Amino acid sequence: MNDSPDFDGLKCPIPLRDYPRITLGHGGGGQLSSELVEHLFLPAFHNPYLENLGDSAVLPIAGKRLAFSTDSFVVRPLFFPGGSIGDLAVNGTVNDLAMSGAKPLYLSAGFIIEEGFEIQQLVAICNQMSQAAKKAGISIVTGDTKVIEKGHGDGCFINTSGIGIIPDGINIGPANARPDDVILISGTIADHGMAIMSVREGLEFETTIESDSAALNSLVEYMLKVNTDIHVLRDPTRGGVASSLNEIATSSKVGIVLQELSIPVTPSVQSACEFLGMDPLHVANEGKLIAIVSSETAELLLEMMKKHPLGKDSAIIGTVTSDHSGRVVEKTAIGASRVVTPQIGEQLPRIC
Amino acid sequence: MNDSPDFDGLKCPIPLRDYPRITLGHGGGGQLSSELVEHLFLPAFHNPYLENLGDSAVLPIAGKRLAFSTDSFVVRPLFFPGGSIGDLAVNGTVNDLAMSGAKPLYLSAGFIIEEGFEIQQLVAICNQMSQAAKKAGISIVTGDTKVIEKGHGDGCFINTSGIGIIPDGINIGPANARPDDVILISGTIADHGMAIMSVREGLEFETTIESDSAALNSLVEYMLKVNTDIHVLRDPTRGGVASSLNEIATSSKVGIVLQELSIPVTPSVQSACEFLGMDPLHVANEGKLIAIVSSETAELLLEMMKKHPLGKDSAIIGTVTSDHSGRVVEKTAIGASRVVTPQIGEQLPRIC
Repeated sequence: MNDSPDFDGLKCPIPLRDYPRITLGHGGGGQLSSELVEHLFLPAFHNPYLENLGDSAVLPIAGKRLAFSTDSFVVRPLFFPGGSIGDLAVNGTVNDLAMSGAKPLYLSAGFIIEEGFEIQQLVAICNQMSQAAKKAGISIVTGDTKVIEKGHGDGCFINTSGIGIIPDGINIGPANARPDDVILISGTIADHGMAIMSVREGLEFETTIESDSAALNSLVEYMLKVNTDIHVLRDPTRGGVASSLNEIATSSKVGIVLQELSIPVTPSVQSACEFLGMDPLHVANEGKLIAIVSSETAELLLEMMKKHPLGKDSAIIGTVTSDHSGRVVEKTAIGASRVVTPQIGEQLPRIC
Repeated sequence: MNDSPDFDGLKCPIPLRDYPRITLGHGGGGQLSSELVEHLFLPAFHNPYLENLGDSAVLPIAGKRLAFSTDSFVVRPLFFPGGSIGDLAVNGTVNDLAMSGAKPLYLSAGFIIEEGFEIQQLVAICNQMSQAAKKAGISIVTGDTKVIEKGHGDGCFINTSGIGIIPDGINIGPANARPDDVILISGTIADHGMAIMSVREGLEFETTIESDSAALNSLVEYMLKVNTDIHVLRDPTRGGVASSLNEIATSSKVGIVLQELSIPVTPSVQSACEFLGMDPLHVANEGKLIAIVSSETAELLLEMMKKHPLGKDSAIIGTVTSDHSGRVVEKTAIGASRVVTPQIGEQLPRIC
C-alpha cells in the first residue's frame, strides 16, 4: 500500500483575474492573500527587498541591516480574553521584526477611528499598547490619527510599523530551510484564533480560551544566544501553522513532514476546534513561533527553549525533506499521510 | 490707534475630557487633533523621540540619524483632479521624512480594503503608488493587506510608513525658529483642499482646480545644497498653513507675522475659497513646504527655490518675532492685523 498522498489536482483553479472584487478571503493570510501579493503588489512595486517576502524587509542602512515591517489591525472585538487590539498591534509588529532575527527598536502607530468612538476605549487601547511596548522593550516614536464618518469605519483600526537592527552573523529567512532540518514550535497552537472565535460567537467551553498574544523578541534573542545558526523563523498568525509552513516549503523549495501527535494543542482548544470543525493547523497564533534548524542543533535548542517562559511548551513537530517540494504532509495519529494545504480563503475574518 | 489684536479669550475652553466620544474634528489636524496628542497619546506612549512632535521621529541608529514617519490615508474620493489616494499615500510620507531634512529611502504600505472593492481600482491605486515611488526615488519594501466586511469600511484606506537618513550637519525641527528669521512658502497654497472640495461637492469653477500632490524631497535636497542652515521645514497638510505656523510658533516659543499680500494663491483657488467662505490659510496642501531660515540667507534661497520645478512660485510670506510668543498674526491687505488661529476642528473631513 502506498501511503503517499496524491498531489494531482491541488492547484487552485481560480487565478486573481477571475475575482473582479475583493473578497474577505483576500485578507485571510492564505492562498488568496498570496495571489494578491503575487499578481498585484509584487508586479506593481517590484524590488529585491519586497520580493524576499519575509515577515519584514531587510534593508542596508549605514553599514547595518535594518528590519522594517508593517501590519494593520482590524480585530473584532477590540477586547478579548488574553488581549486587545492594543497589545496585538504592538506584539504583531514586534514579532514580524523578531522573525528576521532583528532586535526590534521603534514602532509607529497610525489610528483610523470612527466618529463617535468612545474616548475611554481609546485610552484603554493606548494604555495596553504602552504596556505591551514596555514589556517588549521598544518605543512608540511617531503616530498619526485619522477620523472617518460614523458608518464608514468600525470603531478603531490600528497600523503599526516597526524597525529593528539585525545583528551581524544572523541569516534567517523563509528560503533557508534545508532537507533534514528539524521544525520546532514554541508552544501550543491555535489559542488566539479560538479565543476570538469563542467570544465572537458567544460560545462557552469548559475553560475560557485566552489569546496567546505576546512579544516574542526576548525568546528569539535567547534562542540566538544558544545557537546563531537558525535557518527560518516564522510566527504563524493568519492562516495558522499550515499556511506558514506551506509558504516556507515554497520559498525554500523543500517538502515538510509534520507529526500530528507531536503538535501541542491544549485540550480546550482541541475540543473547541473539534466542536467547530476547524483544523488547529489553520487557526491563528499571536505568541508562537516556528523555528527551523539543523538536526544537530535541534535537541539542545528545544531543551533551552523550554526554559524560557514563552517557550515552555516547545516541541519538535516535524522535519524538512527533499521530497514533495513545496508541499506539507502530516503523518496522522493512525499512521496515514495527509496533505496539509494552506488555507484558501478566510476561515475567520478579522482575527488580527 | 493700536492695531495689535487682543489675545484674551482665545484659549480653547473645552479640554479633551469634555468630549466623551471621538468627533471628526479630532482628525482634522487642528486644535482638537493637538489635544488628542497632548492629553492622550503623549502621556500613554511618552518618550523623548515622540515628544519632539516633528513630522517624523529622529532616531539614533548605527551612528546615523534615522527619520521614521507614519501616515494613514482615508481621502474621499479615491481619485481626484491631480492625484489619487495612491500618489498621496506615497508623497505624504515622503514629505514627512523630507521635512526633517532626511533623504527618504524606504516605504511600507498597509491596505485596509472593504469587501467588494473592485480589483481594477486597487490595481490603479497600486500603479499610481508605484509611479509616485519611482518619481520620489524610493522603494516600497514591505506591505500588509486586511479585508473588512462590506459596510464596515469605505473602499480603501492606506497606511504608509517611511524611513530615511538625515545627513550629518543638518538640524531641522519645529522648535528651531528664531526671532528675525524669514518664512518662505514653496508655491501657491490651498490647491489640494480646494481640488477635493470641488469634486466632492460637485462644484464647477472656471478652471479645474488640481491637487498639488507631489514629493518634495528633491526640492529639499536642492535647498540644502544651497544652504544647510535651514531652521524649520513643514508641509502644511491638514489644517493648512495656519495650523502649521501655529504649531511652529508654539514649539519655537516665538511669534509669527504673515503678510497677506505676499501669500501666493491662484485666482481660481482664491475665488473658490471666497465662494465657499473658506480661508486659504486653513486649507490643506500636499505638495508645498514652509521653510524658516535666517534673514541673511532668505533672499538667495528664494531665488534658487524659484529655479526648481516644485518651487517656481516660491515667496517670502512673513517673519518670526519675539513678540506675541505662540501666536500667528497676519497683516492684511488693508493694513490691519488679525490673529490667525489654528483650525479648531474639521474643516473638510477626509482630505488626505
